[in-house]
Parts: sequence; C-alpha cells; structure tokens
Amino acid sequence: MDSAKTPEIGFDIPAAIGMRVEEIQTPALIIDLDAFERNVARMKQFSETMGVSLRAHAKTHKSADIALYQMAEGGAVGICCQKVSEAEALIRGGLTDVLIANEVTDPKKIDRLARLAKFARISVCVDDASVVAALSAAAVRHGVRLDILVEIDCGARRCGTAPGVPAAELGRIVSAAENLELAGIQAYHGGAQHIYDPAKRRVEIDRVVALVRDTVDHFEQAGLQCRSVTGAGTGTYNLEAMSGLYTEIQPGSYIFMDADYARVGATDGNGTIGGFEHALFVLTSVMSKPASGRAVCDAGLKTHSIDSGLPFVFDRDGVTYVDASDEHGNLDDPDDVLALNDRLRLVPGHCDPTCNLHDCFVGVRDGVVETLWPVTARGKVY
Amino acid sequence: MDSAKTPEIGFDIPAAIGMRVEEIQTPALIIDLDAFERNVARMKQFSETMGVSLRAHAKTHKSADIALYQMAEGGAVGICCQKVSEAEALIRGGLTDVLIANEVTDPKKIDRLARLAKFARISVCVDDASVVAALSAAAVRHGVRLDILVEIDCGARRCGTAPGVPAAELGRIVSAAENLELAGIQAYHGGAQHIYDPAKRRVEIDRVVALVRDTVDHFEQAGLQCRSVTGAGTGTYNLEAMSGLYTEIQPGSYIFMDADYARVGATDGNGTIGGFEHALFVLTSVMSKPASGRAVCDAGLKTHSIDSGLPFVFDRDGVTYVDASDEHGNLDDPDDVLALNDRLRLVPGHCDPTCNLHDCFVGVRDGVVETLWPVTARGKVY
Repeated sequence: MDSAKTPEIGFDIPAAIGMRVEEIQTPALIIDLDAFERNVARMKQFSETMGVSLRAHAKTHKSADIALYQMAEGGAVGICCQKVSEAEALIRGGLTDVLIANEVTDPKKIDRLARLAKFARISVCVDDASVVAALSAAAVRHGVRLDILVEIDCGARRCGTAPGVPAAELGRIVSAAENLELAGIQAYHGGAQHIYDPAKRRVEIDRVVALVRDTVDHFEQAGLQCRSVTGAGTGTYNLEAMSGLYTEIQPGSYIFMDADYARVGATDGNGTIGGFEHALFVLTSVMSKPASGRAVCDAGLKTHSIDSGLPFVFDRDGVTYVDASDEHGNLDDPDDVLALNDRLRLVPGHCDPTCNLHDCFVGVRDGVVETLWPVTARGKVY
Repeated sequence: MDSAKTPEIGFDIPAAIGMRVEEIQTPALIIDLDAFERNVARMKQFSETMGVSLRAHAKTHKSADIALYQMAEGGAVGICCQKVSEAEALIRGGLTDVLIANEVTDPKKIDRLARLAKFARISVCVDDASVVAALSAAAVRHGVRLDILVEIDCGARRCGTAPGVPAAELGRIVSAAENLELAGIQAYHGGAQHIYDPAKRRVEIDRVVALVRDTVDHFEQAGLQCRSVTGAGTGTYNLEAMSGLYTEIQPGSYIFMDADYARVGATDGNGTIGGFEHALFVLTSVMSKPASGRAVCDAGLKTHSIDSGLPFVFDRDGVTYVDASDEHGNLDDPDDVLALNDRLRLVPGHCDPTCNLHDCFVGVRDGVVETLWPVTARGKVY
C-alpha cells in the first residue's frame, strides 16, 4: 500500500463528533441518546424497586462504553456476555465483573477464562461434570478463583443440565472442586422472551420458576450454597423479578428495544415492554426511485439482521420495508412520497446481531453527533 | 484501560499462522486453500475459454488479499464491490480497477467516489438522470474521469432504469456530461442466481438477454458507445457468458460455494455449479451435550447468516444443524455420535453476509493454518 494515499482515502467510520445528522454517511447505526438514557434509568429504577440485582447483558451492544455507563448510571452490579473473547475485549475496556452466561468447554478457552480472573471477577456456567475438573485445574494453575453457576435447561432446550436432582449433583461436584466457588443457578429461557401472547409468556415463566424452585430446594437439601439465581431477558424480566426467587436479572435489549420486542410489547397492556423506547436505529438513505410505488434504500443484510423479521420504518407513515438483499432494502412507497437521498430511520428486527455488524454506534442528540462508541467486542465470538 | 494488562488478555483473532486446525479457537471462518485455489483456477479457465472478461465480485469476501489473488492468479481484469467505503478499503489495500456495481447518489459519497479516481480506475452505475450532473461536477472538481454504466432493471425489481429507450436516454445524458465516460450497461439479475430449477433459471436469463439486446440496439441507434455489457453471478454466469452479448461477468461466490448455491447446483446435471467446490466453512465446536439425541455448538447468528437458510454439516453424516440462536447452534444428533469439544465444519447458508461477520479468514492446508487474511472491508457498508 502506498501510505501517502491513506489520509486522502475514506473514513473508517460513517460519522464524526459534531457532525449534523444529515451529514452522516449511511447506512449507520445510530442511538437516540435521550431515549437510551431514559431506558437505562427506567431499568435501574425497576431493579431497585424490586430489590433484584441488575446484571446487564452486554451481548446486545458489545460496547465497553455502554457497559461502563450501565455500571455508573444504570444500577448494574456487573455485566454478562456469552464468549471468552467478548469478555477479553470488555475487560480490556475496563469492566471488572463479568459473567459468561454460557458454557466454556474447550481446554484453551478454559485457560483464557482463568487468566481473565486475574483482572476481573469472573463467573461462568457449567452443565457437564466433565468440565468441572478442567475449570478447577486452570483456576489453580493461574492462582485464581472462578464463580460457577449450574445452568439448568428451564425450557429452551439448548444448553443446561436437567433441573432438580441432576443440577444439585453437578452443584455438589463444583462445590468440592479446588478454586471454584459454587455461586448458584443460571436459569434463562431465551425462547420465552419472544412469546407475543402475554398470558402464554406468563405461563411459561411460571413453569420456569417452578423448575428453579425445585432446583433451589435440592441445593438446600444437599447443603449447597445458592446465593445467586440469575437469568431473565427483556421480554420477561418483570416476571422473574416478581418471582421472589431470582436474585438477579440479565436483560440486554431494554436499552435499545428492537422491532421484535415491539411486537412482544404490543400485546401488553401499555403497548410496550415496561415503557422502554426505541433508541437504536439504522439510518438509511433512498438510493434509487426506479418506478412508481417503490424505492430502494442502502440498508440490507450487511447492515441489520433479519433473523427475527424485517425492520420497520420509524416515524414515517405510508412507507414499508418489504425485502432485504445483501446491500439494499426494498421499500413499498405507494404514494410516492420518497425522493432520492431521503433519509429514513429503521428499527431493526433484532438488535443483538445487528449491533455485531457495525464498528461503532453513532450517538445523536438534538440532531448532532455527540458520541462515537466502538462496538468493542464486535466479531468476538470465539 | 490499564495498558499493562493488554499483552496478557486475549487474542484479537481466533488463530495464528502455523497453528494446527485443532488449536483454532472456534467459531472461526476457515478456507480450504486447496479447494479455493481450484475454484479460482476453474473460473479463470472458463472466462478465457469463453472470451469474456472476469470482474470478480469482492462483495463476497471483502478481502484485499483475495481480490489481489484473483487479479494475479485468477484471470480477473478488475473487481467490483457495492459501496464507496468498500472501494476505499480495497483501494487502500492495493486494488486499482474497481467497479461499484451499484448507485451512488449522496453528495458526500459522490465526492468520496470522485476522489478515489485519483488512485484507481473507478466505474459506477447510474439509474437516475438527476445524479449525472453531480457525478460530473465531482469528477471535474477532482480532475478525474469516471466510467459510467447505465444500470437496467432486467427483472430483479431493485435498482435500475427501464431497459430500451429510457436506458438509452440516460446513456445520452451521461455521454454529454463532462469528465464522465459512458462505458456501457450493467444488467445483473440477483434473484435469477438462486432459482433452483435449471430450466426456469435459463428462461429467466433468456428474458434478461432479450432486454439487454434491446437496450444495446437502442444505444447503437443513438450512436452511444457500449464497450461493456456487464453482470451475472455464480448461479448463471455461464448463461450470460454464452449469450454472445455480455462482455464481462461478475461472479463472487464461486470461490467459496455456500449451502444455497449447493442447492442451486444440486439440480444441475453434474450436481454442482460449474464444478466449484465448498471452500469456506465455519469451524465450530460442540459445547454442550445436554440430552440424548441432540447437542449444541458454538456457532450461531453472529457467526453465520441464515437469510438464505441454515448451514449444513460438512462431511459428517447423521448430524444436522437445526436451529440458530445468537450464540448457539442446535444440532440433531439422533445416534449420539457427538461428544463435548468435537469439531464440525459448517457450510454457511449464504457466504457474503457470513464473511462480513468475521475479522479474518483462516486459510488452512494439510491441517495447518497457512494464511490469515483480514476481511479488509468488513462492516464497510456506507
């Protein structure tokens, strides 16, 4: 590469601090900072009122800046994430209490995990007795202690040991292992977060709570410590919090609210989940108006994830995002209200994998770019 | 951040050169270098035999290393990409002939595009007369020439002006504009690439070719230059090449072959498209074996894109990837052949958005990591 070219060619991110919103190069992932701050404050108040700890899930945003804000201003006692590489990136970014709400089983990853405990308080889940010895050996080798949660499968049919006796038996094995501390139970039902019918959602979480209660009972009968019962996401956090059994909740999406959670919330009495507002948008531009009735925008599959449905167009009636290809979004524009270079805000279908597509969040207030927050752990899946 | 921590915490990519495959931290995006090189050679031979230019589509891989390899060893006359930021990154990486096979309409983007023409030969598509003046003004301002292709909508109902008279009229406007060079016609039918039935695919491309022929005729009648007729992807490249009308083809996925193109190829006579082999895999590990009949691996929505269907498990009978969540893949394992930390290779459903999730390609030969190629333009969507 001719290094003389470098300063003249391109930017590395689509915006700069102080820029007006109209100048942002699209597509870009923008945060409405006012709405974001209100969401953070709202969950802080909820957790304080309910007397449950808030462990904010950083898998949503993967940003050290946002996680530190949740710790400083949002009432979070710590964060969770899903992968060792994610924890590495966030701890390098300044976080000091990280739960990997997932299993870590590869020997090299276990070693990396134990090494992290020199720099931060580390908790991790187990669902298999064969891993306990490896975790213990790594903790001894690095001279650290690891907090261990026994993960139970409470209905999601993903990871997790069976609740009740098998979970308590695994707890006993953890409890006996050197340099491991049995912290309690991880019971998270991912699928339940996205049940649109509130009655069915409640029935499912009632079932979860019964399984957790049975497991706590078995822990107690076995004389095992269980200071933490942790789980719950943005779709059901209030139900677990009201159970009297969960000590900690793990919501992530509440800070942003995506289109799928809007559908979940739409069936609740007040038309939203807990009053949380849409704060995350894909800013996109119309790049083609090839025919009457339709238009094409510059945000496609590489800009937002469609695994939980298409985005919707925010605050602009009569225009619908109807199809995504790699680099384009097709818009229905029956009244031909759109013109070339018009800008739209899309509420992404699913915020977590959408954030993971971008290098930074462009934070906007009063029409001006105020913050640029790197997606610190973007791509850290290993 | 405590900079003293940095060297001890984590890696930034999941592999290192010289590492054995078993040591790669999963999930990781790996290339079978032998298969990849055979694919590159196969398309080179095809384009030479057919006498069409090969403009390799870099939107698939977004890697300067791979694009330079396609130029040096693969018979490519240049590359295409889809966004200005992608072109910026690839030109910084050493590419010198780049077609943005897409419309660029934002004034700031047009300025960035014209600036790029100081460092590389730049072509771009137009489908709206109102943009031509802005492109011309930017080219004049930067003292450069831009090659312009009139994009026609040949059936995909995305961008593109109507074929025939409207396209020729747009060509005339381009032709008259200062510092713009009318290069010809862009006619790419994205949807046709993925039609599984080969007879229907052929009918669709026959229709495309008729529209292109009509447009070329109108260009000739208007005395407009049309040295380039460009388009075609991996699903139909042979049909456009055989048309006698296309001068250039733009396949991208042929280097990797994903699961959806395997389905397209399955209906062809020889069970594959043009003999191309699967060369791109997500390497994943079993991280939970919670119950008989199923297992969980560590590759989910942040590791591969499911917009064109789920990945399939390569070279391992009896195991099926049945569901993806953010960080996990659920596997059917009816015979319980999988054990914790077993490794699998997944062929992703759609290679383009999958590559865009990763920071690097881990190139593997004979069980050893031989190359680490950054995904140079990852996240460059603006």
